Amino acid sequence: MSEIKKWYEKQGPQGDVVISTRIRLARNLPKIPFPARMSQEQRQAVEKAVKKAVEHGSAAIAQSLHYRAMEDVTQTEAISMVERHLVSPDFVTQSKGRAILTAADESISIMINEEDHVRMQVMMEGMNLEKAYQIASVLDDSLNSSLHFAFHKTLGYLTQCPTNLGTGMRASLMLHLPALQESGTMNRIAGNLSKLGLTLRGTYGEGSNAVGALYQLSNQVSLGLSEAEAIANLSTIAMQLVEEERKARQQLAQDVAKQDMIFRSVAILKSARVLTSEEMMQFLSNVRFGIAAGLITDISYDAVNALMIQTQPATMSLLHGGNLSAPERDVLRAKMVVEALASK
Amino acid sequence: MSEIKKWYEKQGPQGDVVISTRIRLARNLPKIPFPARMSQEQRQAVEKAVKKAVEHGSAAIAQSLHYRAMEDVTQTEAISMVERHLVSPDFVTQSKGRAILTAADESISIMINEEDHVRMQVMMEGMNLEKAYQIASVLDDSLNSSLHFAFHKTLGYLTQCPTNLGTGMRASLMLHLPALQESGTMNRIAGNLSKLGLTLRGTYGEGSNAVGALYQLSNQVSLGLSEAEAIANLSTIAMQLVEEERKARQQLAQDVAKQDMIFRSVAILKSARVLTSEEMMQFLSNVRFGIAAGLITDISYDAVNALMIQTQPATMSLLHGGNLSAPERDVLRAKMVVEALASK
Repeated sequence: MSEIKKWYEKQGPQGDVVISTRIRLARNLPKIPFPARMSQEQRQAVEKAVKKAVEHGSAAIAQSLHYRAMEDVTQTEAISMVERHLVSPDFVTQSKGRAILTAADESISIMINEEDHVRMQVMMEGMNLEKAYQIASVLDDSLNSSLHFAFHKTLGYLTQCPTNLGTGMRASLMLHLPALQESGTMNRIAGNLSKLGLTLRGTYGEGSNAVGALYQLSNQVSLGLSEAEAIANLSTIAMQLVEEERKARQQLAQDVAKQDMIFRSVAILKSARVLTSEEMMQFLSNVRFGIAAGLITDISYDAVNALMIQTQPATMSLLHGGNLSAPERDVLRAKMVVEALASK
Repeated sequence: MSEIKKWYEKQGPQGDVVISTRIRLARNLPKIPFPARMSQEQRQAVEKAVKKAVEHGSAAIAQSLHYRAMEDVTQTEAISMVERHLVSPDFVTQSKGRAILTAADESISIMINEEDHVRMQVMMEGMNLEKAYQIASVLDDSLNSSLHFAFHKTLGYLTQCPTNLGTGMRASLMLHLPALQESGTMNRIAGNLSKLGLTLRGTYGEGSNAVGALYQLSNQVSLGLSEAEAIANLSTIAMQLVEEERKARQQLAQDVAKQDMIFRSVAILKSARVLTSEEMMQFLSNVRFGIAAGLITDISYDAVNALMIQTQPATMSLLHGGNLSAPERDVLRAKMVVEALASK
């Protein structure tokens, strides 16, 4: 990993509730079977063609991407890529004929031969749907000019899984919803959102058990409406959810027991010598809440965001060289957290 | 409560393991039935006689004691006296015909008409058996010169309960044994001590569940050996236990999980907004251990000792005026602890 500041080390718009934005476009090359039915030769041909299209594309943003064949990537590094949201968990289960292109700040990644031939992804800090989509579009156009992605005039972009037909776009937001989670209304909210064509689910673990109160809100429908409409829809509803969360937080922040949890959490994080990942996520969730409530003033959202990524098992091993056992990680995690949160 | 520093606000010899020493002498006036069989008139006569004997006794230490009829003591104050170890829980269940004499630093108390006519008690910080016994003796002599306590030449001092016959003395030490408790050997140790005529039991809660790892070690036998012998016996065995505890701590202090518990405990105590009594006792136990292990350097044993007394329910209500509900106490306790442990 380079010294360039990663997207997850920054704080974005609505950063008190919205941690990150992700736009993903699914694309396929014409006249070549979808990945599930490809031969090894076709797989290699696709890999080569996409690599070339990226490198010789019109967009500067595409040319700067870094190419890696997944066969050249160690297992630890591959898992770390999943932890950093660069690739899907499925993508690293098999490396043959698969490749990845990434930006130095990790905000852009292109998976070759995942479920579709091409999966472009743009990630940004905070609520950044329009901007992220704009970047994805530039990338898409740049590749399309030479690859001529499979497109049907009524179905739109053709994808291996029919749920992605149409725009081939999935837009999602990672939200921090501790107050709504604590109010016990997540299932009702998720049900309502589903009727509006959106999916809300725990980023790590489901529903009211979502670790660290982190939720993924994304568009379900990619057929029958434009990218701009889908994004506007997601954006409007997300802002309502953000406001609901803020209102619930205002109330909850008055609760002395909640304040106690917040102050204990930051105290433990600043002084633990052993820290499991799940504990840390829960305590960081309380710290985030504490920052939003104005109870914690010496810790920034980006410090919290960065820790959530940097202390994942494989990423920690990568950062510190060599594979670490779970107990070693818990000790190292505590050390990293103590250092990251130490009063400046 | 006066501004004079209480015995429990000081740290004594072997203060890493021995929190306090208590010497109690049971005495009765001759030719008057024991309290269980006394008439109201006899009760009042005893009260009057003891009060007079204390006030006009030869020892300056006796003359300085403060007299209170228990009927003049509010319930909150009475319970606080129990919490401060000035009186027994039994003593405050009934106030009629009972009185208490106390020293300003609370190291001396005399209960009138508890189980015996007179129960003198001397409490001191740390391991202070000889000194505490010496003070108790001076007090005993001072009262005896006018009261002529009931004494039998073969049975010794006569007491209502036969287990106190002889010296009428109970000597005890409050010990902090977190490492031995954690080693799971407390029951075996208590069994061995019992064969040596000593009793070891949890100060709050029993055996391996003793809250805050606080144990009371006391002599069981008051008949057939002198006070000096009983004290020497208790002292020798207590020092062996102290050494065992220290050895066990040295090992346990190497454990990173234990270190983690210690640092988390102090962090929580320094930042909690709500704190139950049981939690606090457990965390203070870890802090005590941390001080002994050299891991905590900005907190003193006496700060810990004082908190254990000052944050008891009734004592808190007394210190802060007015009765407090349990939730109010938990908030106030957190505040008191945060203030007491704040880095100077």
